[in-house]
Amino acid sequence: MSQPADTWILAAQCPSRLGTVDVVTRFLKGQRCYITEQQSFDDRLSGHFFIRTEFRPEDEGFDAETFREAFSARAAEFAMTFELTAPGARMPVVIMVSKADHCLNDLLYRYRTGQLPIEIRAVVSNHPDLEPLAAWHDLPYHHLPITPETKAEQEARVWRVIEETGAELVILARYMQVLSSEMCRRLSGRAINIHHSLLPGFKGARPYHQAYDKGVKLVGATAHYINDDLDEGPIITQGVEPVSHADYPEDLVAKGRDIECLTLSRAVGLHVERRVFLHANRTVVFSR
Amino acid sequence: MSQPADTWILAAQCPSRLGTVDVVTRFLKGQRCYITEQQSFDDRLSGHFFIRTEFRPEDEGFDAETFREAFSARAAEFAMTFELTAPGARMPVVIMVSKADHCLNDLLYRYRTGQLPIEIRAVVSNHPDLEPLAAWHDLPYHHLPITPETKAEQEARVWRVIEETGAELVILARYMQVLSSEMCRRLSGRAINIHHSLLPGFKGARPYHQAYDKGVKLVGATAHYINDDLDEGPIITQGVEPVSHADYPEDLVAKGRDIECLTLSRAVGLHVERRVFLHANRTVVFSR
Amino acid sequence: MSQPADTWILAAQCPSRLGTVDVVTRFLKGQRCYITEQQSFDDRLSGHFFIRTEFRPEDEGFDAETFREAFSARAAEFAMTFELTAPGARMPVVIMVSKADHCLNDLLYRYRTGQLPIEIRAVVSNHPDLEPLAAWHDLPYHHLPITPETKAEQEARVWRVIEETGAELVILARYMQVLSSEMCRRLSGRAINIHHSLLPGFKGARPYHQAYDKGVKLVGATAHYINDDLDEGPIITQGVEPVSHADYPEDLVAKGRDIECLTLSRAVGLHVERRVFLHANRTVVFSR
Amino acid sequence: MSQPADTWILAAQCPSRLGTVDVVTRFLKGQRCYITEQQSFDDRLSGHFFIRTEFRPEDEGFDAETFREAFSARAAEFAMTFELTAPGARMPVVIMVSKADHCLNDLLYRYRTGQLPIEIRAVVSNHPDLEPLAAWHDLPYHHLPITPETKAEQEARVWRVIEETGAELVILARYMQVLSSEMCRRLSGRAINIHHSLLPGFKGARPYHQAYDKGVKLVGATAHYINDDLDEGPIITQGVEPVSHADYPEDLVAKGRDIECLTLSRAVGLHVERRVFLHANRTVVFSR
Repeated sequence: MSQPADTWILAAQCPSRLGTVDVVTRFLKGQRCYITEQQSFDDRLSGHFFIRTEFRPEDEGFDAETFREAFSARAAEFAMTFELTAPGARMPVVIMVSKADHCLNDLLYRYRTGQLPIEIRAVVSNHPDLEPLAAWHDLPYHHLPITPETKAEQEARVWRVIEETGAELVILARYMQVLSSEMCRRLSGRAINIHHSLLPGFKGARPYHQAYDKGVKLVGATAHYINDDLDEGPIITQGVEPVSHADYPEDLVAKGRDIECLTLSRAVGLHVERRVFLHANRTVVFSR
Repeated sequence: MSQPADTWILAAQCPSRLGTVDVVTRFLKGQRCYITEQQSFDDRLSGHFFIRTEFRPEDEGFDAETFREAFSARAAEFAMTFELTAPGARMPVVIMVSKADHCLNDLLYRYRTGQLPIEIRAVVSNHPDLEPLAAWHDLPYHHLPITPETKAEQEARVWRVIEETGAELVILARYMQVLSSEMCRRLSGRAINIHHSLLPGFKGARPYHQAYDKGVKLVGATAHYINDDLDEGPIITQGVEPVSHADYPEDLVAKGRDIECLTLSRAVGLHVERRVFLHANRTVVFSR
Repeated sequence: MSQPADTWILAAQCPSRLGTVDVVTRFLKGQRCYITEQQSFDDRLSGHFFIRTEFRPEDEGFDAETFREAFSARAAEFAMTFELTAPGARMPVVIMVSKADHCLNDLLYRYRTGQLPIEIRAVVSNHPDLEPLAAWHDLPYHHLPITPETKAEQEARVWRVIEETGAELVILARYMQVLSSEMCRRLSGRAINIHHSLLPGFKGARPYHQAYDKGVKLVGATAHYINDDLDEGPIITQGVEPVSHADYPEDLVAKGRDIECLTLSRAVGLHVERRVFLHANRTVVFSR
Repeated sequence: MSQPADTWILAAQCPSRLGTVDVVTRFLKGQRCYITEQQSFDDRLSGHFFIRTEFRPEDEGFDAETFREAFSARAAEFAMTFELTAPGARMPVVIMVSKADHCLNDLLYRYRTGQLPIEIRAVVSNHPDLEPLAAWHDLPYHHLPITPETKAEQEARVWRVIEETGAELVILARYMQVLSSEMCRRLSGRAINIHHSLLPGFKGARPYHQAYDKGVKLVGATAHYINDDLDEGPIITQGVEPVSHADYPEDLVAKGRDIECLTLSRAVGLHVERRVFLHANRTVVFSR
């Protein structure tokens, strides 16, 4: 599972059609690239095809640009889109938070230890509280407060941070503001949110209190791509934890924290390793 | 956990008040009964108290009726209701099914092996399909078909079976008919249903298809007491299973079967061991 | 996940070498076969390659024999071994049991409902106890008692049943006899055993009692291919269940039953869907 | 579950004998203490009794010393030992580490947020690496290197830290040194270690490599009290994670980290909430 130092990732998708695998594998063979791991899936309901390949060039002097160009021509015949990821690549990300720090703490830990191949370019928050945590990790912290009146302006500033840092992924690690439709569209497919319920179970505010009122025996969390429909974006991962009558709402909140951290970091890991494919409102996840 | 041959169960509940535990434990001491396991819980939000005790009379000649009478007087002071269950008691039950047999098969197996301390008095179905399965286990099978026109009449016949067999519990093991309000009231607190979703996630028909449409990564099942509000009765247990993009709706249905069986039989086991307390719309479950 | 009526499976393995995927996928393209799902893995420590492909012929008149012959030539260049499985194929199996019936009951249920694509040709036991269960499912039951003196003779009779029924897989569903080295060799890679512990934790007899003595908080089960080294064959799946101080040894035994059933039937399902590859003492499992 | 600000904990154990519950509950009633949660268990194999009670004094002016004294007299008749824990108590602890920081990071986070009711008095390590992490949390860090020659001396210094800080619990958060028998005895019942395997499966060094060699499909971790017999102390909690053929040894190590953190912090939480009872080589855990 661990990606060796010389292994590239090719992730691609296209409409279903005879030869979709062959278009990738024959090309790789021709480039003298050895496939170390491959998963493909054809969704017969949507008529769409997904493939993820890890490969190792046999010869020295493998050139990504040459590869990309040559493969583009081939892929075009199948209307195939693709991404090529270099060995050891670390995806640039911006993390957005409010006051709760459990998800941020968890992400920072996995970042610090190299467990998550990301490069955190900035932490953005509508509150000042988590600045010391970011500072200890030598990370720029942008405190961008928000009010109903300044929402558009604040989002513009957030957007500037994303653009200037070159972030390819935005992680909403318990950012307690609803993004505008405009922002959602801009971040389509590259912003992951953690919702503290097993969506679509308890949408909206205070899901753990809703869960308590219903007397559920399990609580959970959902990591999903954001989209314009709040709490309804394509689901990447979900986690769950048993609870009991002895858990009051505040206990559900506390118990939920662990599962939120694990679920979010798992989703981020899957995304940056190019294991998640987004198509319409669903995801294909080639898990490890 | 396994209940030895000489162990009684006393399960009780009452409004919160100083001495609620003592009222039970002092009495047991006085009766020379040794407490082998006890759990109590005070729900501070509802102001209600729950206690479950397993005990073993130290002296021979323990008499249940005498015990009940004497304890009733004591309990009355605390407005405490209670149930006393004899060692080796097997609760008489009626199982209701339609065509799906996985939950019935599972219950019959656990019944046959003695794992579930129940005595199945009858199987009732609106279809003839599962008669051979019941017959092999030497169980009476009542085929009571139902149409919108005959619903009241059919329910009356079902009710007669329940009464005549002396069933204390009705298990709805994928019985695909909505019970009338009247029937729900009659069976309040003593009919357990298995719903094939993590309620309140996907209510109503075809929950696995709903789950597929939402692209969830977990499916589950909920065992609950029935009440007048369809799919909304007090939850006893919930179970969960991971799924992926490669699971089509029919796969979710198949995967759900195992978790439905386990969740339902767990709920039934908890109920017959007097581990479930119903209060308002919530349950207290002293699990093992 | 559910295999549609027109989908074939090609499972293959060979030493690692440039082009191992291409040898399969180019051939399928050439045969006008559409790949609906594919997984491959290269084990860099053992230098061995594994691939599993589900495909659908685009043209009518697909002929398995022609395919096999043509592919054999191609595969030989890579020292690749392979199996081709037809749509709807049901693997012929023999189930071996002793007195415990929980695994047999579970397998029979999944067989009866078609959930497991197997065809049970016979049930073999060293005890007469489970004959009625087999009879109800219209299955031949061979009661072949065994003593230390008759072991060789009994195994010869078991072997005859396996041969005469044409069984491709033998399922040891809590068969409480140690097979001889000779028998293990004959059944190498096609006999699955369920051991009632998380191997290699508690080998040998009465693993739940061993687990109790150690005060473990989890018990589990292991499904593995048998080999000559008792309790040491290549592991296919493992399952686990939490336990507590209140579980006496007999409770662990009872709790273990569910996880044994689930673990064994999962292993059988993976095997018959050609998802398990055996290489040296390890398995590669392309799970669903 | 969450302990309200006015709730005390009484945890006790004694040999089995008629009236063991009553001795506690009658006394509490007499002291006008309301029992909010209680669990008791009688281990019939060892003939030992365990009880944990959360209670709330009804009257103001509850005095712990008076309570302790009065109850001691009562308890003595039953050879009962007990501990009384005040509302909001935070147990003083010392954490011992080497170079791996995942468990320390996790404990510090739960400490910082108040999720674990502990007061970390010092971090002790045989390496200097984790000093900055401790420093950021304003915690004293004692770098006490160790060699075979200086082991006795180093342990004496460790012991001094434990004594001087008044630590009631020592957490071995991946401390990679074997403690001497003398040290184990001194810390009996108040030092929790995390072992990175499902004990007793893979004892000794590099358990994940052992697990890989066996081709297991699950890895786990065990939190246990230390005793003189390395890797054999009484187990408190165990956690587990599925793995696959695609996980190389280094992947098992990485996957194991999450489960080690969760398992250790769960064990510490159970211990400081007085939910763990140690008797002979087993624990009774009244989990939440």
